[in-house]
Amino acid sequence: MAIVTLITDFGTADGYVGEMKGAVLSRAPHATVVDVAHDLPPGDIEAAAWVLSRVWQRFPPGSVHVVVVDPGVGGPRRALALRAMDRWFVGPDNGVAGRVVAESSASEAWTLDPERCAPGPISATFHGRDLFAPAAGRIAAGDMPDALGDPLAPARLVPLGTEPPSRSRDCVRGRVVHVDRFGNLITDIPASWVSPTALTELGGVELSGVRSSYTSVPSGQIVVVIGSAGTLEISVRDGNASERLSVGRGEPVSVRPERD
Amino acid sequence: MAIVTLITDFGTADGYVGEMKGAVLSRAPHATVVDVAHDLPPGDIEAAAWVLSRVWQRFPPGSVHVVVVDPGVGGPRRALALRAMDRWFVGPDNGVAGRVVAESSASEAWTLDPERCAPGPISATFHGRDLFAPAAGRIAAGDMPDALGDPLAPARLVPLGTEPPSRSRDCVRGRVVHVDRFGNLITDIPASWVSPTALTELGGVELSGVRSSYTSVPSGQIVVVIGSAGTLEISVRDGNASERLSVGRGEPVSVRPERD
Amino acid sequence: MAIVTLITDFGTADGYVGEMKGAVLSRAPHATVVDVAHDLPPGDIEAAAWVLSRVWQRFPPGSVHVVVVDPGVGGPRRALALRAMDRWFVGPDNGVAGRVVAESSASEAWTLDPERCAPGPISATFHGRDLFAPAAGRIAAGDMPDALGDPLAPARLVPLGTEPPSRSRDCVRGRVVHVDRFGNLITDIPASWVSPTALTELGGVELSGVRSSYTSVPSGQIVVVIGSAGTLEISVRDGNASERLSVGRGEPVSVRPERD
Repeated sequence: MAIVTLITDFGTADGYVGEMKGAVLSRAPHATVVDVAHDLPPGDIEAAAWVLSRVWQRFPPGSVHVVVVDPGVGGPRRALALRAMDRWFVGPDNGVAGRVVAESSASEAWTLDPERCAPGPISATFHGRDLFAPAAGRIAAGDMPDALGDPLAPARLVPLGTEPPSRSRDCVRGRVVHVDRFGNLITDIPASWVSPTALTELGGVELSGVRSSYTSVPSGQIVVVIGSAGTLEISVRDGNASERLSVGRGEPVSVRPERD
Repeated sequence: MAIVTLITDFGTADGYVGEMKGAVLSRAPHATVVDVAHDLPPGDIEAAAWVLSRVWQRFPPGSVHVVVVDPGVGGPRRALALRAMDRWFVGPDNGVAGRVVAESSASEAWTLDPERCAPGPISATFHGRDLFAPAAGRIAAGDMPDALGDPLAPARLVPLGTEPPSRSRDCVRGRVVHVDRFGNLITDIPASWVSPTALTELGGVELSGVRSSYTSVPSGQIVVVIGSAGTLEISVRDGNASERLSVGRGEPVSVRPERD
Repeated sequence: MAIVTLITDFGTADGYVGEMKGAVLSRAPHATVVDVAHDLPPGDIEAAAWVLSRVWQRFPPGSVHVVVVDPGVGGPRRALALRAMDRWFVGPDNGVAGRVVAESSASEAWTLDPERCAPGPISATFHGRDLFAPAAGRIAAGDMPDALGDPLAPARLVPLGTEPPSRSRDCVRGRVVHVDRFGNLITDIPASWVSPTALTELGGVELSGVRSSYTSVPSGQIVVVIGSAGTLEISVRDGNASERLSVGRGEPVSVRPERD
């Protein structure tokens, strides 16, 4: 019984998510369909790539992750199936799979062929329902992607287009890659690159030390913690760091060793 | 293993949806419960009818669709079970099933009897939990609606009360029936009624041509497309047509052949 | 096939809910994972306790309810497993289980031991994924909590810290314990304590009579009803009582017998 997870920007007021679930369950009646996130900002490819990155390896081998944040639907962008670490990704080739490819030592990709995936008419405005969900349902039901499309070199996939973090002897440089519901500022700087006494700078503020938990500081205070993605995270205990610092996604972050 | 889908205006902060799921799974432990939409505007029967219309035939035969947008709960409105195209609908008789009946060549209906559906006390403020979810659970478990209520002629159901689109030789007239999360203005005008060169008028604006995809125009531009419901849809590529045109649900839309 | 339900304040835009689901399904692939509520206000323990209270007995025996509203994550607060009425609760010991304990004649509790629950590193900022979901998955898969932690007397659990309602010969006193999406003001005053002719006072307004249904009054009118939790509820038919009366959670409510 395969798992099919869904990540979309469709919200939960319009029925689009329901149409996708119907398309999956019509082809794989015994699949377990799992809602991961549907309230992504409309068209936000970077947010989709982040959420997918967090979840894809948490599900058992064989799981199929469908991501539909697809502002280019109906245009020339490719439709993809991708296999990495024995999990599947199905969605548009617009960067949403960029982190998965970067995190995998090896992956295989296919360009989905609409005619092979879903015989019959396909809307040019809703590939989530008419192409990606059917393809995911068929993979969940045991079909191989060779039956759904043609092999494609993963190196040819559209990259996410974000700079990775960098480090020199004196300084680590990264950025805020996600702001979550609590206002936590999640960076791409690996916790293993910095020491517990490091100085973190962002938004014109310098913060001293890296803690293991929000509760290391009193309520209302700013804290740099090792977040649950394994990277540095700037938070306000019981508060909202994004609002407090007026900082959002993309903000540069630099970390230096402790002051002499 | 039957599928039970849920469409409500309960949101996802109060637990009402959870209570309904418990009521279904207590009676049909092997049912697959599927969230379709819970963030409908409170009491919005027309939105519920629209969402149900989009999804009901997408699920496999035997699926049970529960719709609870029920501002008349506890009053004299009837409680319904309806069978059409081998799918089930369970919910209030207030118009939410209106599109299903209109789209089906044949359907059968029953008035649910609270005493037969769910022995024991029934709240007069939450039939979703105490009447519709139990009835859906029992249908999913194999009970026939004859055991839950009395037959009712579908013609006696409360209609949705919206005008269908009309056409004369010179003009097609319809309206905006739904505004989705992206601000797309979805009309009830069948795409098959209009030509690719038609002129569409709404909100004091005249739009030339009907395209197959959002990507037929540059980013930020208004476009009339054939939407995924098979009807005309007015969109702004990478933008929000409802905000741009200050137009909402109910807005009249007319379409004429191309200018001479 | 055990049921695992989820109540969180994680929202549905960040992937945290997906990570938890992956952690459950990795340990209990045949579990039915059920979303109850994810849009609770961040850190709102009282709201979480309320939602849990409404749903926990609605699910079949053996169900596991995971609640992660956990502002003290990473600090000294205990991690709990609790069994009551043959249902399980897993979550932080911060009051979220307070209503379950109060509603159960008997319950058993365990302090979860991170090392026994989930071998390997545990984030100090996301116990939902690294501790509670794994523990719930293992209980759903048949493990006993004795394998996951040490017994704890339920009397030692952190209470919710809210006053129960009280009654004297002349007056019943309670408060608003929840405001739902519709603006209904749900109190903790048992309907069985008051008569149909009682006078209800809150927010400087006196309301006469207790009705069984919202539809007992015309649209737009305030009404005191017996709500679906079995307690008094103040509503505006087709409207929002919280906005109309400018009243929120915690507001004192008193009820007296009818005027002489």
